[in-house]
Amino acid sequence: MEQEAAAREDADSQLMYRIERPVYDEDFIRSQLLNPKENSSTLRQRLAYKCRCSSEKAKATALSFLPILSWLPAYPVKEYLFSDVVSGLSTGVVQLPQGLAYAMLAAVPPVYGLYSSFYPVLLYTFFGTSRHISVGTFAVISLMIGGVAVREAPDSMFYVPHGNGSNTSLILDVEARDARRVQVAVVLTTLVGIIQFVLGLLRFGFVAIYLTEPLVRGFTTAAAVHVVVSQLKYLLGVKTQRFAGPLSVIYSIKAVLSDITSTNVATLILGLVCLVFLYGVKDLNERFKKKLPIPIPGEIIVVIVSTSVSFGLSLSDDYKVDVVGKIPTGLLPPAAPEFSLLPNLVTDSFAVAIVGFSMGISLAKIFALKHGYSVDGNQELIALGLCNFISSFFQTFAITCSMSRSLVQESTGGKTQIAGLLASLMVLLVVVAIGFVFQPLPQTALAAIIMVNLLGMFKQFRDIPGLWKTSKIELAIWLVAFIASVLLGLDYGLLVAIAFAILTVIYRTQSPKNSILGHVPGTGLYCDVDEYEEAAEYEGIKIFHSNSSIYFANSDLYVNALKEKTGVNPDHLQAAQKARNKRKEKANGTNNSPLKMCAKYNERGVTHEVLSLNHVAEEQKGQTGHSSSESLSEEMVFIGPLSAVHTIILDWTPASFIDSVGAKAIKQVIKEYAAVDVQVVIAGCSRNLLSELDTLQFFTEAMTPEMMFPTVHDAVLRCQRSHPKPLQPDRR
Amino acid sequence: MEQEAAAREDADSQLMYRIERPVYDEDFIRSQLLNPKENSSTLRQRLAYKCRCSSEKAKATALSFLPILSWLPAYPVKEYLFSDVVSGLSTGVVQLPQGLAYAMLAAVPPVYGLYSSFYPVLLYTFFGTSRHISVGTFAVISLMIGGVAVREAPDSMFYVPHGNGSNTSLILDVEARDARRVQVAVVLTTLVGIIQFVLGLLRFGFVAIYLTEPLVRGFTTAAAVHVVVSQLKYLLGVKTQRFAGPLSVIYSIKAVLSDITSTNVATLILGLVCLVFLYGVKDLNERFKKKLPIPIPGEIIVVIVSTSVSFGLSLSDDYKVDVVGKIPTGLLPPAAPEFSLLPNLVTDSFAVAIVGFSMGISLAKIFALKHGYSVDGNQELIALGLCNFISSFFQTFAITCSMSRSLVQESTGGKTQIAGLLASLMVLLVVVAIGFVFQPLPQTALAAIIMVNLLGMFKQFRDIPGLWKTSKIELAIWLVAFIASVLLGLDYGLLVAIAFAILTVIYRTQSPKNSILGHVPGTGLYCDVDEYEEAAEYEGIKIFHSNSSIYFANSDLYVNALKEKTGVNPDHLQAAQKARNKRKEKANGTNNSPLKMCAKYNERGVTHEVLSLNHVAEEQKGQTGHSSSESLSEEMVFIGPLSAVHTIILDWTPASFIDSVGAKAIKQVIKEYAAVDVQVVIAGCSRNLLSELDTLQFFTEAMTPEMMFPTVHDAVLRCQRSHPKPLQPDRR
Repeated sequence: MEQEAAAREDADSQLMYRIERPVYDEDFIRSQLLNPKENSSTLRQRLAYKCRCSSEKAKATALSFLPILSWLPAYPVKEYLFSDVVSGLSTGVVQLPQGLAYAMLAAVPPVYGLYSSFYPVLLYTFFGTSRHISVGTFAVISLMIGGVAVREAPDSMFYVPHGNGSNTSLILDVEARDARRVQVAVVLTTLVGIIQFVLGLLRFGFVAIYLTEPLVRGFTTAAAVHVVVSQLKYLLGVKTQRFAGPLSVIYSIKAVLSDITSTNVATLILGLVCLVFLYGVKDLNERFKKKLPIPIPGEIIVVIVSTSVSFGLSLSDDYKVDVVGKIPTGLLPPAAPEFSLLPNLVTDSFAVAIVGFSMGISLAKIFALKHGYSVDGNQELIALGLCNFISSFFQTFAITCSMSRSLVQESTGGKTQIAGLLASLMVLLVVVAIGFVFQPLPQTALAAIIMVNLLGMFKQFRDIPGLWKTSKIELAIWLVAFIASVLLGLDYGLLVAIAFAILTVIYRTQSPKNSILGHVPGTGLYCDVDEYEEAAEYEGIKIFHSNSSIYFANSDLYVNALKEKTGVNPDHLQAAQKARNKRKEKANGTNNSPLKMCAKYNERGVTHEVLSLNHVAEEQKGQTGHSSSESLSEEMVFIGPLSAVHTIILDWTPASFIDSVGAKAIKQVIKEYAAVDVQVVIAGCSRNLLSELDTLQFFTEAMTPEMMFPTVHDAVLRCQRSHPKPLQPDRR
Repeated sequence: MEQEAAAREDADSQLMYRIERPVYDEDFIRSQLLNPKENSSTLRQRLAYKCRCSSEKAKATALSFLPILSWLPAYPVKEYLFSDVVSGLSTGVVQLPQGLAYAMLAAVPPVYGLYSSFYPVLLYTFFGTSRHISVGTFAVISLMIGGVAVREAPDSMFYVPHGNGSNTSLILDVEARDARRVQVAVVLTTLVGIIQFVLGLLRFGFVAIYLTEPLVRGFTTAAAVHVVVSQLKYLLGVKTQRFAGPLSVIYSIKAVLSDITSTNVATLILGLVCLVFLYGVKDLNERFKKKLPIPIPGEIIVVIVSTSVSFGLSLSDDYKVDVVGKIPTGLLPPAAPEFSLLPNLVTDSFAVAIVGFSMGISLAKIFALKHGYSVDGNQELIALGLCNFISSFFQTFAITCSMSRSLVQESTGGKTQIAGLLASLMVLLVVVAIGFVFQPLPQTALAAIIMVNLLGMFKQFRDIPGLWKTSKIELAIWLVAFIASVLLGLDYGLLVAIAFAILTVIYRTQSPKNSILGHVPGTGLYCDVDEYEEAAEYEGIKIFHSNSSIYFANSDLYVNALKEKTGVNPDHLQAAQKARNKRKEKANGTNNSPLKMCAKYNERGVTHEVLSLNHVAEEQKGQTGHSSSESLSEEMVFIGPLSAVHTIILDWTPASFIDSVGAKAIKQVIKEYAAVDVQVVIAGCSRNLLSELDTLQFFTEAMTPEMMFPTVHDAVLRCQRSHPKPLQPDRR
């Protein structure tokens, strides 16, 4: 190790960092060194540039709006078609049962899940830029829609009188309820589509960036909890109300538990068998990923077998097992959504639109990276928006891409969205031809499908120990997203999580690490003196470093940290100065005891600093306390400087912006220090920041460009020179 | 000027910046240069430190909790007492009419304003750290309280049947209404006190920092609008309902305008006379500031004269001028607030508590700065909290310090809170002895007092042009605070304004300025090549600078900007590489046309970049487009490098933090570039950021500390050496 390093050192010995130049300050830089380029492009030129070459641009715009135009004409039929057909059929086989199952989550009859697995998928082929994702129904989105549908059309709205004469009872009008819920889901989807489309046109694809990874993972884990809880009743065959809104998870569990005695044993057994089977298939697929040409389609097997069993044994009639029930054959004619429902759904649709998009774009990016092409976030938003908007006129609910299905599409060799197209056509075939065969399909089998699909999400709990090690803040985001989404519901939970994520950024910019820097001799590099042995301070110079910008929310903190860290407090020094002046007067006049004031000042210094926890501060206190008492001692009282520190250098290397409040605070503190003969200079200020300071009219009165230095080392050299003989040696 | 600079240059010629050392990278720094200090203080030591010297600490705590203990014993009677008495009497003379007037704003009977001008002022003497501010009633706070009181106890709740038999009519039970409004105001005040006290104990004084200056000024201007609108009806003598909540300003104006025909001419004349007189006095005081020993007490003159006139001419009876009415003599016994009202008031009390505190602390700081002492934000919170909490048991409404009164107290020579104490005692005297004499005081005179006091706030409109020049973001904060507070009411307006101010910080960290740096020859300094003529790029090296940290909300933007600014896009290069490999294969096998793929790639490159507006990007496109087509041309196809750029240096000097999303994005982009033979290194990373990267386990796989350099110049020197002969000369 030692030898290696030595060898490298030899090799590097020729490669030297060698700079020899005068010490610069901002004044010199402005007057002699740098000439700003004249900005050659005027507004008019830029406008002209923007408006020219319109035919090329029109073509580009058309291509970017309908990506199919760019890839379909060049579709290499021989190479791609076979893979796409295999992949399309495999995906269709998953699309079908998931459509039925997720319709249950969305609180609408199963056939609407099939519609949602057809129209949007077809449309995405034309507008989408990703070649591998499989759009369609998705558990989290479906659950969010279901929550809204249940809230807007609760069971309690649909009890109608039943029976004749005296023994009238209220029974639930399931058909009216479901019709209403479909209306709600459809109108929500229209709105989601409009929002996504408009955000895409406005190039607002970046909104998804606030959904940072820990947030999305915490949120989806919470969604998985919601889904599993909502499916418990189907798995057990218990008939309870469906809850929505804050604390719905708790109410749902309570309702299921209180009704657990009415569990339908046949349902439970069938559900558990499906669950175990699906889990086994998933495990096999995972384990023999490379050996299997296509994954075993466990879900369609479960659907076919359980439908057959249910039909053969008449489970619905003989064992009271809940089945899917009526599935109309054929498609519905287009119809305008019930727009009167809109006003209540605005917030929800924003949540669905953003979650849907962020799920889609994150998967699309993963595949794009893997296969070396690029996806366009804004076009993806437009594509999803159009899929949702147009499809909603055909009674679908909102879709995005599903992780599990996309993995199937990609792993079975899908090359383009031709695969997605085929999958959607397969669903169409079922809808128009053989939909009715699924009528005896037990709901518990669908619940099993949903649950197994979400098992992967529970694995995200494993994030927690990892995040604990790497980043407490991100762990906090994960936990807040999870807990808020479980307890408050997915919509409010998402809002809370996003707000929290934004606040963490504020917190980070506002909790800077402050330190005093020292020079690593001979290198021109400056490091924290508390952390590195080699860093040495110069006599009489304190270099204050804070890794933050200076703006309204932290200018106070900055100034306080400056005073504390440097151990030079202008208030105390001013008090000392006053005391000294007074003594001077009194010495000239009556001969009062000057020691009294001195003692008072020292005591006050102690009172103020005794609360500090920092050992360094304590050390410095000792130091400055000592020096000030020394300078206040009778011999020196009329000649000594107030503080052993004659210069403070503010290292602004990490500062990236400043506002008027920050600039005022800095000006103020510079004046305060100037009043007690401590010079404050600024080093490492970037050119951007300097032009901001110019705009803020910082360089007035005592503030001159001569107090700005391009590097800390420039500042140190100049300040050492301007105070050549410090009165006291540094004690460090 | 030229000569001066030359002279300075000569003087500086000896002062050289001279560094000669090997080029460092992070690996070398860690292994050879820097040794982290062992952190000598263990948790136990720190705990021990925290717990020791408890007697001193106890004393310090007591002194900081009851600041009067530290200044009263040392009170220099001879020097200070006379000034304090003069100042106290002057302040009391202002305190009195303001108390009566602001009670109107708070929608409670005038005597409660007198109570509020006594108890809290008395208490502040003991707990406050500011020597010059005058606490007591304040227009903005009073108006906020009034809004809540009117909302919780609207007129409509207090119509009682009146009359007998058939001609029963509903009349307003003013007494019941006012009693209820007092209850609301008092309970609100209790809660405000508790909130302020607890925030103070928790050392949350910093919450006020979110109230940045433009926000406060926009907000108080809006408050002035609210106040003037609410006083219009008193000035005109029109009897309209009082509105609260969003759009109340508009409703109020509408109500007054629709009733303008019922204007009471006597009221209007009296009001206008008072208005003109007060304005004149204010102007005189301003103009002859230095010549007047104490300011002319215009307000008390107005009160006395208008009371006399009103009494003498029986304005109330003969001219139907609204007067103050019953003022009970003496104080009320303490009583517990009506806590059942609490739940509705929580949000409001937070708003009042924070606004009140921020008004207080900002004034206190101004005076402390002027007179060279320091105020403690947390103790101020505790003091205000105690004043409000304790006083509320004596039926006061919330107070803070008032700007106009504090200026009187300070300018008349007040040295300590003894002045405040005297002012409060003067109010006490009025309350217990001669309160009743103010019963004929016309309300219009009070309205005039309120309006003139707020004229100063309208001057804040002049901020707008100034802010337009210095900072558009701060102008936006001002305008949002103003408009939101005018339209939504002060409480929601404040919330919106704070949220907006926080978002601007996010916006700033997310809209970094990106640039490509070049070396200013011989200096080791690097500047934006687009801005400075002297900055020159090295062959094959692009230095990318972005003045932001890299975290979840901007890692995507960072990576995109990197690809665009450097003009080196790994996707395009990879496509080119693939195309080249394919051609290689085909050249080895069948002899298909290689030009087709090449043309396709170029076209794609154009399609992607045609949307860019940036001239530089265009230039660079030409450059890379050229070089890539060149490298793809048949002669070079098997030997040329993919890109003329062999190294990209990321300048992380301004980065202050990074999170896992940012670290992943950087890792990813480094890998992408590595795949196309472009080396990416990082320069200027601070030690803090390096330790964050260590925690995030950044240095795995291909990421080594050897790619981190302490300065950009180190990185440039090393990278130049590792690529000694660039294949293509730089075109710049």
